[in-house]
Amino acid sequence: MDLFEKLIQDKGPLGKHSDYAYGYYMFPRLEGPIGPHMNFRGKPVLNWSLNNYLGLANHPEVRKADADASAEFGLALPMGARMMSGNSVYHEQLEKELSDFVQKEDTMLLNFGYQGVMSVIDAILSRRDVVVYDAEAHASIIDGLRMHQGKRIVYPHNDIAGLEKQLARAEKLAEENGGGVLVITEGVFGMSGNQGRLKDVVALKEKYQFRLLVDDAHGFGTMGETGAGTGEEQGCQDGIDLYFSTFAKSMASIGAFVSGDKYVINFLRYNTRSQIYAKSLPMPLVIGALKRLELIRTRPELRADLWKIVNALQSGLRAKGFNIGHTNSPVTPVIINGDETYATKVVLDLRENYSLFCSIVVYPVIPRGLIILRLIPTASHTLEDVERTIATFEAISEKLKNGYYETAPAPSLTLAAMES
Amino acid sequence: MDLFEKLIQDKGPLGKHSDYAYGYYMFPRLEGPIGPHMNFRGKPVLNWSLNNYLGLANHPEVRKADADASAEFGLALPMGARMMSGNSVYHEQLEKELSDFVQKEDTMLLNFGYQGVMSVIDAILSRRDVVVYDAEAHASIIDGLRMHQGKRIVYPHNDIAGLEKQLARAEKLAEENGGGVLVITEGVFGMSGNQGRLKDVVALKEKYQFRLLVDDAHGFGTMGETGAGTGEEQGCQDGIDLYFSTFAKSMASIGAFVSGDKYVINFLRYNTRSQIYAKSLPMPLVIGALKRLELIRTRPELRADLWKIVNALQSGLRAKGFNIGHTNSPVTPVIINGDETYATKVVLDLRENYSLFCSIVVYPVIPRGLIILRLIPTASHTLEDVERTIATFEAISEKLKNGYYETAPAPSLTLAAMES
Repeated sequence: MDLFEKLIQDKGPLGKHSDYAYGYYMFPRLEGPIGPHMNFRGKPVLNWSLNNYLGLANHPEVRKADADASAEFGLALPMGARMMSGNSVYHEQLEKELSDFVQKEDTMLLNFGYQGVMSVIDAILSRRDVVVYDAEAHASIIDGLRMHQGKRIVYPHNDIAGLEKQLARAEKLAEENGGGVLVITEGVFGMSGNQGRLKDVVALKEKYQFRLLVDDAHGFGTMGETGAGTGEEQGCQDGIDLYFSTFAKSMASIGAFVSGDKYVINFLRYNTRSQIYAKSLPMPLVIGALKRLELIRTRPELRADLWKIVNALQSGLRAKGFNIGHTNSPVTPVIINGDETYATKVVLDLRENYSLFCSIVVYPVIPRGLIILRLIPTASHTLEDVERTIATFEAISEKLKNGYYETAPAPSLTLAAMES
Repeated sequence: MDLFEKLIQDKGPLGKHSDYAYGYYMFPRLEGPIGPHMNFRGKPVLNWSLNNYLGLANHPEVRKADADASAEFGLALPMGARMMSGNSVYHEQLEKELSDFVQKEDTMLLNFGYQGVMSVIDAILSRRDVVVYDAEAHASIIDGLRMHQGKRIVYPHNDIAGLEKQLARAEKLAEENGGGVLVITEGVFGMSGNQGRLKDVVALKEKYQFRLLVDDAHGFGTMGETGAGTGEEQGCQDGIDLYFSTFAKSMASIGAFVSGDKYVINFLRYNTRSQIYAKSLPMPLVIGALKRLELIRTRPELRADLWKIVNALQSGLRAKGFNIGHTNSPVTPVIINGDETYATKVVLDLRENYSLFCSIVVYPVIPRGLIILRLIPTASHTLEDVERTIATFEAISEKLKNGYYETAPAPSLTLAAMES
């Protein structure tokens, strides 16, 4: 059988919509500088779809640092893997400053978050080890676990009793194999906005022997008194053995890092495949990260601005009766029921008739039958943006109740008409 | 048992040298603009260690494009995964221009080469499928295969009879499972410089049913009449079903792409996990890639300059009796026998007494007992650089023969003395 035959028969859960969805529901082009007001298909929209939590993407000091570093060094420098020829004093300085900020002994910079966390998981585990992980862990964690040849055990999302049950099992299995136990969870889950129950997980260390890896992609910069993340927020940073975050959210860049005890990070530095065998993070991104980190550390008002918007948006949506789940972070999911077609109708209405742009999350990212309209508040939004958004959702709420979307034409047809 | 206990007992094949190797043998800091003459530990060195084949890293037009795009857009834009909010007309333009250049119907841009090729392999394979791959395939390919739940079969490096034997087996296994066969090899192998025998592999399609994925990281821009890669060089580009390259070599950047038939690339666009769940390539890197591609296409003299240096260097080394294997690409491996300690003594001598900087490759990248001093010629090197290098290697050759390195002090001690 031809290897590619199956691709014609089954384009995948998202690919089956590609005929009409490209450029609108998927692969949209947001244009103009990053902020709450951007252009979509030539028209201004109020934008809630970017993880630019602290507004750093377009902060004048960040823009200047990015521009100056690119002019000074170009985007090619340094070339080669960090270990071979891609190291610099800036890379080392960023590692030191990140260590200080997240209160760990040492840090390894990673050239990209996805492959970074995958490879860290891969490096730290032998086939004797047992992994216990939260059911809603990010795709990059899952892909890391898919390379693990030992036992992996999932526990229900944020269910501490469920985790404890699996830990008892894992400890026994690990003992039999002569291995150890690694627990993996997240600081803030990116779809639901739920904080991982880190403090409760750490407390289980009194009863079970394990190490804890936390992916704090959405918590770094947004959570905790100094912005050092969800471990700081919950007062349990010391109990996190490997603290990971990407630069793709509040840092508004690419790249990532992992922090922990010196001997562990040193091991990772010489044994993490995606870092040994792939290019180092370019210098302007490293220097840009140093500037972003400086702003996170020295401008608490950015975090205060973020939370002012978060609180206004979430309390406003709740007051209008919307289900935003149990978020206790900036991530704001408006959860409605329906299939993908229903979801596209709501999004089409929001974008075309209310000029409101938010991301739409459907299967396979979340379970079938659920739709999440995901709103990401940022420090750059204003209370006027929030008011307009609450008014828009009030109108949408009426339409959801009175069956408007059931009878609306299929988005594929509407879009075809708009193009003609 | 504590999960981290094993990290103390075994720091890994490279990590065990970390006490003395950091900053010198591993994680060195090359300083100054990228080119044949850079600084190492404050002193100028003749540098042969960067995959800057065409000299684009520091080309004035590239530097200007990088600086201008970073000033105009910043390094944050666009945010989010390509599918969610990270698309732009520039991303689409680059895909179109790459397709035209490598003579394929369509192209998907990838946010990083390592995770890109891993995830492409993962997306294209079901557990029914069988993979047959070259024994010297890059770590990123191996990691992609480690996620594959079906059968994987290795064939001896570049051994076409060996491949044919495994193909017969694979075809039978795939038929039993109701799956297909994927062959994976490389255009140019990065350690040996050997071209993959692509034309011979493609010819096997007349006897066996399979699809072919080629990683042309080192061939893109350097091989073929127009620089379109090793498929063009060998006149068999049509037989390559998925053509992959990173931007980290001749393009002197980060990011990557995969090209093929429209329906296949469209499938990948909606089903490649590291692209669906991770951030898009930043705009300045996309615009920088457009400029680099333009130079590859329109300045054949860059490729001519590269090959002038390649030919002079390789024939000079061969004339002095050095074993540079069977390279038929710019990659120039000087292969000597010895363990890691021996290797470090040679490299220390080259760097301290001849101011010559090249990369050192040892186990686990290559088999134990072998050392590769890897030289990467570029269009920016001069024939004077080559002459000086041949003279240096002539001196080294004497020392190799007369046992100089056997009696030289251990590099760990020499370095300690240098630091004090």
